[in-house]
Amino acid sequence: MPKINAGRLLSDLRVLAQFGAHRTGVHRPTYSKEDMDSRRWLAQQYETLGLRAHIDGVGNVFGMPRSEGRSLLIGSHAESQNHAGWLDGALGVIYGLEIARAFGETPSCTGLPIAPVAWADEESHYIPLLGSRSFVGDVEEAEIDSAVNVDHGLPLRDALRGAGLAGVPRSLVEPERYVGYLEAHIEQGDVLEGSGNRIGVVTSIVGIWQYSIAFRGIQNHAGTTRMAIRKDAGVAAATLAMAIAKHFPEIAGPRSVWTTGRITLEPGALNIIPGRAEMLFQFRDSEMLVLERLHAGLRELVHETAMKTGCSAEIKQTSAGKPWHMDPEFQTAIESAAARLSPGAYVRMPSGASHDAQVIGRKVRSAMLFVPSISGISHHWTENTNDADLVLGCQVLADAAETILRGERK
Amino acid sequence: MPKINAGRLLSDLRVLAQFGAHRTGVHRPTYSKEDMDSRRWLAQQYETLGLRAHIDGVGNVFGMPRSEGRSLLIGSHAESQNHAGWLDGALGVIYGLEIARAFGETPSCTGLPIAPVAWADEESHYIPLLGSRSFVGDVEEAEIDSAVNVDHGLPLRDALRGAGLAGVPRSLVEPERYVGYLEAHIEQGDVLEGSGNRIGVVTSIVGIWQYSIAFRGIQNHAGTTRMAIRKDAGVAAATLAMAIAKHFPEIAGPRSVWTTGRITLEPGALNIIPGRAEMLFQFRDSEMLVLERLHAGLRELVHETAMKTGCSAEIKQTSAGKPWHMDPEFQTAIESAAARLSPGAYVRMPSGASHDAQVIGRKVRSAMLFVPSISGISHHWTENTNDADLVLGCQVLADAAETILRGERK
Repeated sequence: MPKINAGRLLSDLRVLAQFGAHRTGVHRPTYSKEDMDSRRWLAQQYETLGLRAHIDGVGNVFGMPRSEGRSLLIGSHAESQNHAGWLDGALGVIYGLEIARAFGETPSCTGLPIAPVAWADEESHYIPLLGSRSFVGDVEEAEIDSAVNVDHGLPLRDALRGAGLAGVPRSLVEPERYVGYLEAHIEQGDVLEGSGNRIGVVTSIVGIWQYSIAFRGIQNHAGTTRMAIRKDAGVAAATLAMAIAKHFPEIAGPRSVWTTGRITLEPGALNIIPGRAEMLFQFRDSEMLVLERLHAGLRELVHETAMKTGCSAEIKQTSAGKPWHMDPEFQTAIESAAARLSPGAYVRMPSGASHDAQVIGRKVRSAMLFVPSISGISHHWTENTNDADLVLGCQVLADAAETILRGERK
Repeated sequence: MPKINAGRLLSDLRVLAQFGAHRTGVHRPTYSKEDMDSRRWLAQQYETLGLRAHIDGVGNVFGMPRSEGRSLLIGSHAESQNHAGWLDGALGVIYGLEIARAFGETPSCTGLPIAPVAWADEESHYIPLLGSRSFVGDVEEAEIDSAVNVDHGLPLRDALRGAGLAGVPRSLVEPERYVGYLEAHIEQGDVLEGSGNRIGVVTSIVGIWQYSIAFRGIQNHAGTTRMAIRKDAGVAAATLAMAIAKHFPEIAGPRSVWTTGRITLEPGALNIIPGRAEMLFQFRDSEMLVLERLHAGLRELVHETAMKTGCSAEIKQTSAGKPWHMDPEFQTAIESAAARLSPGAYVRMPSGASHDAQVIGRKVRSAMLFVPSISGISHHWTENTNDADLVLGCQVLADAAETILRGERK
């Protein structure tokens, strides 16, 4: 069995967290100086292990074994959300590094090739899941040409040039070269903590359906327009938000979630009745039937709100991701390792967040492991996980990796 | 009786609307090139009438009679809201110009001095009611030093320098020099149109109370955080908006109005549960008792919303303007002129909007006249008024001005 080095794992996690350190978290947006410095640091670590390291044209960092045999990709994304947590992505990246090391140090595991990887921009600073989508051949040059940074509008092309990646080729997956892909990630929720479990075996990744909903009323003077004749688009938006809060629980699945992330009132002045309101809304579930039910329910509530408020409504679906199921044998490998190392304290569960594993899974067998998030907090600089859980998760994934690679060689 | 020239009045209104013309409205923000060009054009018109014209340090344009006697100020503000209507402010400014002309052309009115005036920034591009407040001595240099443009943040000092007003003295009212102040304005509502009246005699100007209300919840991942444990600040904001819509009608006065002009969710990302929500809210009424009742009601609803949503709430009152009552004798003068020229089609009414008249009224007797707004629309480029009403309003104000000035001389 490969034995991971707990002290080295934790210290590597802390070293990576120094790139763009922000309070107890990190601010490491894709292609920022801190992000590229961290990717170059990772490539060095891979090289030190005797792997062939390279950074491809979108910033994906690969550590490829020099041996001939099919290798097992292990990793996650290296960049962070803005001013967010130190483990989101970084955890799976350092697990890949540590597991590659542990296999190298374990005589019985030499010849079981691990290929650590760090994907780019899973966090959507430019394009959601850019690195993994590029790797599976799902990103056209035209998409890169037209993408800009969501925060400051810098064209992706300029960002890539600034990162020294202009003209660097993008690596494309050759499925026959890989046994599969394993990704570890913090849960980013409180299911594990709340149920007293320390390992989550991911069964599926939810589909995320997103919408832009616009209400158009009549923009007018906030002092001189009687309440009786108003068509206030802002009131329509609030009405819809409350209708969703009231009716979605009746049609949602047990694990469905829904969120209004942004409300914009136009023109947005204190003394003007909003003539237009836009809501960015999304819901997630791992069952297609539930997603379709929520979709129909939303359209109905938008229609009713328009009727009730006298505003016109326009609903645009901006994404409709399919739920993705993890490879059953890989799930079993992770689960048996968890049963040995964390008896009675592991659980099968869907992922409420999207991950690179759902993209890589289109080309090679993939699975995921979760470790608990303290208080379920993530996408915030206070995000954290107990050291003991960080270490346990890595050992479970290492054991699962060995099982999977040995299964290959039978 | 002074006879105004209808053709000249309408053509001057259209000439002024050419400065910053936008579709059928205007975009003439305070101290923009278009705004300053229009103020210089006004000064020229005043000079042509034999008045002593000058533009003061905040852009107020005055046309002072050369005669000794106390004069009657007539005007309004010259700038517009962004991409808004052609009459909001411009109407009263051109009425002042036309009435000064008509008096000059009417032998029986020579010796009744009219002082046309155009105030600056009533529309709050930098400081609400800046021009009139400066004229009554209510603006310290420090307030000008710290003010910036609400849209693009340009410091007021830079804007004044750009407008060629740096170092130009600000004119201060000498109350004994003026009989009073008359201002005409479009109603900006539909009370006149809805009741078939053509002239509104303004009795009072509402008090405007404004608030910034912030809810703080827990920012978290929108996919992995179960609905049951969320503290969504955006849901709190929507809950308050609906609570206001439900309960304010029970405690408001017959003419009270209230508006949520802006809702900001932070961080404002589709996949993050808002940790903070801010609402900009205001209400208006002409009765102090009603304002105080709404204030208490709002605080209660904010408190209840915080309880219900598990978010913490902070409510900050950003303004608490007192209602202002117009001069009774001036009101009578306007009303008798309306009775002669528009029998049975005029009404006494409060103003739901704030106007320079409430500021000037602190130092000299003031009153206002409204003409109808088609469909009650203003603060939008489609704002308009029938030509016949534009002409009628000017003649009514001219007759009222004569009555007031003659009363003086008795």
